[in-house]
Amino acid sequence: MKKVAVIPGDGIGKEVMEAAMLILENFNLSFKYVWLEAGDEAEKKYGRALPDETLEEVRKCDAVLFGAAGETAADVIVRLRQELKTFANIRPARTFKGVPALHENVNMVIVRENTECLYRGLEFEVADGITEAVRVITREASERIVRYAFELARREGRKRVTALHKANVMRKTCGLFRQVFYQVAGEYEDIKANDYYIDAACMYMAMRPQMFDVVVTTNMFGDIISDLAAGVVGGLGLAPSANIGEKHAIFEPVHGAAFDIAGKGIANPTAMILTACMMLRHFGYPEYADRIEGAVEKAISEGKTTPDLGGELKTMEMANVVLSYV
Amino acid sequence: MKKVAVIPGDGIGKEVMEAAMLILENFNLSFKYVWLEAGDEAEKKYGRALPDETLEEVRKCDAVLFGAAGETAADVIVRLRQELKTFANIRPARTFKGVPALHENVNMVIVRENTECLYRGLEFEVADGITEAVRVITREASERIVRYAFELARREGRKRVTALHKANVMRKTCGLFRQVFYQVAGEYEDIKANDYYIDAACMYMAMRPQMFDVVVTTNMFGDIISDLAAGVVGGLGLAPSANIGEKHAIFEPVHGAAFDIAGKGIANPTAMILTACMMLRHFGYPEYADRIEGAVEKAISEGKTTPDLGGELKTMEMANVVLSYV
Ligand SMILES: CC(C)[C@H](C(=O)O)[C@@H](O)C(=O)O
Ligand SMILES: CC(C)[C@H](C(=O)O)[C@@H](O)C(=O)O
Repeated sequence: MKKVAVIPGDGIGKEVMEAAMLILENFNLSFKYVWLEAGDEAEKKYGRALPDETLEEVRKCDAVLFGAAGETAADVIVRLRQELKTFANIRPARTFKGVPALHENVNMVIVRENTECLYRGLEFEVADGITEAVRVITREASERIVRYAFELARREGRKRVTALHKANVMRKTCGLFRQVFYQVAGEYEDIKANDYYIDAACMYMAMRPQMFDVVVTTNMFGDIISDLAAGVVGGLGLAPSANIGEKHAIFEPVHGAAFDIAGKGIANPTAMILTACMMLRHFGYPEYADRIEGAVEKAISEGKTTPDLGGELKTMEMANVVLSYV
Repeated sequence: MKKVAVIPGDGIGKEVMEAAMLILENFNLSFKYVWLEAGDEAEKKYGRALPDETLEEVRKCDAVLFGAAGETAADVIVRLRQELKTFANIRPARTFKGVPALHENVNMVIVRENTECLYRGLEFEVADGITEAVRVITREASERIVRYAFELARREGRKRVTALHKANVMRKTCGLFRQVFYQVAGEYEDIKANDYYIDAACMYMAMRPQMFDVVVTTNMFGDIISDLAAGVVGGLGLAPSANIGEKHAIFEPVHGAAFDIAGKGIANPTAMILTACMMLRHFGYPEYADRIEGAVEKAISEGKTTPDLGGELKTMEMANVVLSYV
């Protein structure tokens, strides 16, 4: 029995969570769901975006299924990632038949380091008007994330792992990351390894995203390249993600609370449903994940989608179509 | 009389410089050219990528016209930018008729802060396997670059300035940058001001680059978004840039030495020629810049280009076509 903390959060988080749960509850899973609060609304109610009770409960869970948070997103999600030591942020980006995108046949997984870099919160105003942030890169965290990327490549039958960095400018921090990358790469002779500067990589991502298979990079660059990759394959409506640690995991769509469309029932549930599939795979239900993903693809290819993808369905209508195809 | 240091550098730098000089020398300009060395070859010859003599000479010049450097690019260009205090890195990105691009009607200018952020070189190995880089953001440099962006917008009749940052994570450094941005924006009521997180901005850049007019951001984010923007409008073959300071200026194409095609005479001279145009505008020759840019556009729209843009011309052949159209 796995304990899953369900945190719908703010804005469309609630709506897409309802859609994902509709589908999950259709399966006979050995999950116990615990519904919890976090985000802007929680902050208003309890004075903290991530209330102590939520954090306490979450620590007792095996996974968090997270919808979205609004203004407080960083307080909630960055803190959760750190508290639960989920060191690997996994962000697949692929094209779907029926979804307009800049390119065809894109299928990559971005593996983003999730614990250090500029996300450590080490910032100081050292004098009036002089601020600094400390970017921390360690051998240990770099090795762990690079190894994770190569293992993922092997597990998924992928052929290449590409490291992104800016070692020509940050010789010590990015230099360490690149050095560790090639060291670990040496242990995986079946998988190709190469590296690019982050700036060039962003240009390639726009022009020839098929160059990428597994991408591994540090936290801030991973944040940037994963949004970019989502944009290249058709937008955030389709982008799931998983944060994996030794004991805990957090599953969240890459999109946010989207207050502009919240409450209208038109949010695209795809990213959240695909996020739930990542959780199913994580807990050993790959066949269910396959079936749901197949159903999502069928719905999208038939135009049975929410308006953002050109369809006319509401969030729960699309969820019901997917469910009927499962 | 303006003194211009001409540094062709490595790889295709030499070839595209020859093309740009062919065109510049056709005009009666009050320039004195001083040819200097820097880059990989200089390092081999003199032991330093940026020889002291070059740096000394460059200090006596009003501008540097730079081709490209290879492996030593960071040693040369980052150092030159710092030594010459060129605080503003100006990178226009626009579509050209006849150049395949992901989108149409893109026309933006990226204004990148050029002196601080993660480019200060403040890096330490604080313990074995533990490295850090310090990201410095100051009110003074932020205000200077933001003001430059608004002045540029006004001068070029542009309507909006957009700031990019990650203030939800880096509250102090990016927070300061954003705060200064809106403070300065208040003085420019004729120009709209807005801001995005850098990750979202990269997604928008891929999906709807027409959203951007003038973009202003800190050094590392500026490095990333400018390569991305170049990719969105068709690649580095067309991307010029200028580094502007109080006393000095450096003009360089965004592309590098491209050793893979160097020596074949097929490098696209467009970025370098457009870079020369930025220098002409800087020194008060806007009508010449207009004429050359018009000639470049005509050549490109007629397919009279190098192979990277689908044409059949060699570097100097394309330069001669442009010259004949000036
Ligand atoms: C909300 C924000 C703190 C977060 C991040 O930067 O990691 C988001 O952009 C993401 O990518 O999940
Ligand atoms: C070569 C490198 C140091 C440089 C930079 O990062 O500024 C380049 O990428 C650029 O954008 O001009």
